[in-house]
Amino acid sequence: MLCKQRLSYRPNIPLILDQWDQICIESLSTQAIASDLQSVFPHTHSLPRCRAVVGRGQKSVAYKVGVLFSGGPAAGGHNVLAALFDALQKCNASSQLIAFLDGASGLIEDRTQQLTSQMIDASRNQGGFDLIGSSRTKLDKPEQFSAALQTVKKHALDAVVIIGGDDSNTNGAMLAEYFASQNQKTQVIGIPKTIDGDLRSEEIEISFGFDSACKTYAESIGNIAKDALSSKKYYHFIKLMGRSASHIALECALKTRPNLTLIGEEEKSLFSIVSELADLIEKRHQIGKNYGVVLIPEGLVEFMPEIKFLLEELSSGAKIESLSEKARITFQEIPEKIQQQLLLEKDPHGNPQVSQIAIEQLLIHLVKKELQKRKFSGKFNAQDHFFGYEGRCCLPTNFDADYCYSLGLAAALAVREGLTGVICAISNLKAAAQHWEVKFVPAVQLMRLEKRNGKLKPVIEKTLVDLRGNSFVYLCAHRARWALEDHYHFPGPIQFFGPPELTEQRPFILERSP
Amino acid sequence: MLCKQRLSYRPNIPLILDQWDQICIESLSTQAIASDLQSVFPHTHSLPRCRAVVGRGQKSVAYKVGVLFSGGPAAGGHNVLAALFDALQKCNASSQLIAFLDGASGLIEDRTQQLTSQMIDASRNQGGFDLIGSSRTKLDKPEQFSAALQTVKKHALDAVVIIGGDDSNTNGAMLAEYFASQNQKTQVIGIPKTIDGDLRSEEIEISFGFDSACKTYAESIGNIAKDALSSKKYYHFIKLMGRSASHIALECALKTRPNLTLIGEEEKSLFSIVSELADLIEKRHQIGKNYGVVLIPEGLVEFMPEIKFLLEELSSGAKIESLSEKARITFQEIPEKIQQQLLLEKDPHGNPQVSQIAIEQLLIHLVKKELQKRKFSGKFNAQDHFFGYEGRCCLPTNFDADYCYSLGLAAALAVREGLTGVICAISNLKAAAQHWEVKFVPAVQLMRLEKRNGKLKPVIEKTLVDLRGNSFVYLCAHRARWALEDHYHFPGPIQFFGPPELTEQRPFILERSP
Repeated sequence: MLCKQRLSYRPNIPLILDQWDQICIESLSTQAIASDLQSVFPHTHSLPRCRAVVGRGQKSVAYKVGVLFSGGPAAGGHNVLAALFDALQKCNASSQLIAFLDGASGLIEDRTQQLTSQMIDASRNQGGFDLIGSSRTKLDKPEQFSAALQTVKKHALDAVVIIGGDDSNTNGAMLAEYFASQNQKTQVIGIPKTIDGDLRSEEIEISFGFDSACKTYAESIGNIAKDALSSKKYYHFIKLMGRSASHIALECALKTRPNLTLIGEEEKSLFSIVSELADLIEKRHQIGKNYGVVLIPEGLVEFMPEIKFLLEELSSGAKIESLSEKARITFQEIPEKIQQQLLLEKDPHGNPQVSQIAIEQLLIHLVKKELQKRKFSGKFNAQDHFFGYEGRCCLPTNFDADYCYSLGLAAALAVREGLTGVICAISNLKAAAQHWEVKFVPAVQLMRLEKRNGKLKPVIEKTLVDLRGNSFVYLCAHRARWALEDHYHFPGPIQFFGPPELTEQRPFILERSP
Repeated sequence: MLCKQRLSYRPNIPLILDQWDQICIESLSTQAIASDLQSVFPHTHSLPRCRAVVGRGQKSVAYKVGVLFSGGPAAGGHNVLAALFDALQKCNASSQLIAFLDGASGLIEDRTQQLTSQMIDASRNQGGFDLIGSSRTKLDKPEQFSAALQTVKKHALDAVVIIGGDDSNTNGAMLAEYFASQNQKTQVIGIPKTIDGDLRSEEIEISFGFDSACKTYAESIGNIAKDALSSKKYYHFIKLMGRSASHIALECALKTRPNLTLIGEEEKSLFSIVSELADLIEKRHQIGKNYGVVLIPEGLVEFMPEIKFLLEELSSGAKIESLSEKARITFQEIPEKIQQQLLLEKDPHGNPQVSQIAIEQLLIHLVKKELQKRKFSGKFNAQDHFFGYEGRCCLPTNFDADYCYSLGLAAALAVREGLTGVICAISNLKAAAQHWEVKFVPAVQLMRLEKRNGKLKPVIEKTLVDLRGNSFVYLCAHRARWALEDHYHFPGPIQFFGPPELTEQRPFILERSP
């Protein structure tokens, strides 16, 4: 019912993108990149940053463009497709938009589907990636590149648009370099997607899907805080999806004001966090409160010095018996079930499977032990929660719907203007959509070389929470009060109708960034 | 922001309640009740069912009324308070509404708070029970009754309004009987609250909070189904709060159309369910689908013959070594962690702590084993979820806001008309609020005697899912298709503004009831 209503929503777009025949591309500075990176991208390292301005651009002709989703879904993806489709049609009615099915594997294995206006119209402003699917297939092996080359040649594609996160955009840039090295004119254009919010730069203010996911999680967190306050029985330990960076936890904290929010980037040790939690519980007990709400970013464990140390030993193949004393002490404190989770293998990207570690349960377990040690006389009953999947495929908020549609238009513009190896960026997102700016950032300018599985590889560094940024500083300034006084906010469900102050809210971490 | 907006929502009410000085009470049939119950309620067993009609009722004077919440929160509770307050003020500006704090314990321990218009205005249409708190304290011991008597005498209360579920309304009726036996004129009036939707009768079409909870859960279920369809990686096993009856699972199934919905009332055995799940996974694998969504009511275990049998042996004190062969076979199939959960003690009501049994994890565990046994060649990756706390304290939907406000007005009418031992009922809920009917059902007419902890006690029987009712029949007629073809619905977040077909949806189990 609501889905159907949303089909007819018309996204707001930057004024500049409304004048399709009067836009051109203006180069901004070309930033020098490190020489070791230059040798990895011999053909594409010197691309300039650029932006869309009013002027006379390339003549629009018919284009044939391929598009794929990569990685976990994020709300708004379908609007990228819709805008691409609409803009290419506007260029020339015989343009074609070809979807690669199920992510990069569709490109490698030549599984495609031409998108029709009927398909596009049925997915406007809808959540999910289900129209064309996605996968975590990484596009980074020579044989994959050559298979991709065969596919784009076969379909005679002018461009491939890759909608993905840091890894996928890195690989997109490598594909652009590979095509250039093979004299293949097909452009590769990236779109910044991830609910984690860690793909950011000066121009990429936030990735799409972050806003919708955080609002969905904040609804549930607020409801649970209201329950804590009504029932006064439980501490709710809420883990939030998002690897490494704690942007989601920070954003949700500013939206809901829980009693404690852990931020991975603070790099607190596991045992200092347990101690902090036990202190909180004791202090609240003294003022008659045996309930509370704690937010825990999924990536927290990656930042904990002693867990990091333990994981490194385990992932370098050490057996339990041969762990160092320091690692063994940590390992022993952990309940058996979680020990097993720590012993699980790494994911295909070489990252430890932190999402398998039930950090929220580990903390509850250790806090109980700590309170016993302290002879705590109050009650400590805890409920654990994990919010993740419910926020990736929700209906996109108006913001994500507008933002994604604008990103799709920007990608079409990049196609027309012959850009490659760039990520589309919409800036000035705090402002109303009409004032947004359209920029293009060469992915290579966001990269550095990093050792992964023993080899130096180019990576786009994940943007972590800035501990000197306005958002975190705001949290710090308020958390002592929020800890004891219960200043919970209850954002409620995402609204699509009604007063604009409800329907057009921007993410806090945008509002509060410098 | 949204909370603030909701403060000014004006609930829709039945026309009859809009004419405060032209309403009176008309008796309907007096149903004969069983003689054994008559002896438990010597003073109050013969109350008639009645309803509000246009006419000349009692003269409104100033009243002093106490009110309490009992048990888990449900969305809309604050509107019961608001309506009670408004109506009592309308009767006479010197009326007083006294809250008992933290549920029945506030009544027993004389912890009260007079509600002011400022407090009421700040909680209109808000979720939670936090204005006055709640608790699971049962009011059923002689010394508690006499303490309650002291409290109502001290405050010279005309009536006590108990907002609670089946147990609380049972105890409310016993309190009414006790007051009558002591010649205490204080009336006791009940309000049907529980997200579980199991407190129903001909007149009580649904309890309040059910609609808001189901819509909140359905939002998340729909989002997860969209994710399953986009990522094609996981089976999501979603447990839904609600003891015993499977109304919530049924309602959410009709809203979201998952691949499989388990309904406790079908009384399938654990192992037949495992087999059914394995069949589903195999069949979906054959058509290329290694993902899906399964809904599991929290109360499912209570209906499983072999688990029931095992629980009975365990709860009658049998040690593991002395279990019967039949019980032992079941026990052995269960992973250790869940064995421990089964050994946990019962709750204060004498019910097994089924909410402690991670049935969703148990099913995943057993399905994995079963698929191994069948040499299943496909992938089976599962994620488990539990939705409960996020649905009890959400902002009430327009329906729950209207319904609760109407219930509060009905309670005030019951006060004025001198009713006691009754539960307020609003009927004809499928229709627009103006056409709703206002009825009063003596709680004793919903009761029977049941053995609990060895003693015969009056209980209001929980209304289970009617396996011949329209809703379940509808599910049955469609579930074979939904199992394989993916007819997921994505209801999205609750909307408070916009087209009425979005904001005024009634629960399906109302719409589809005969």
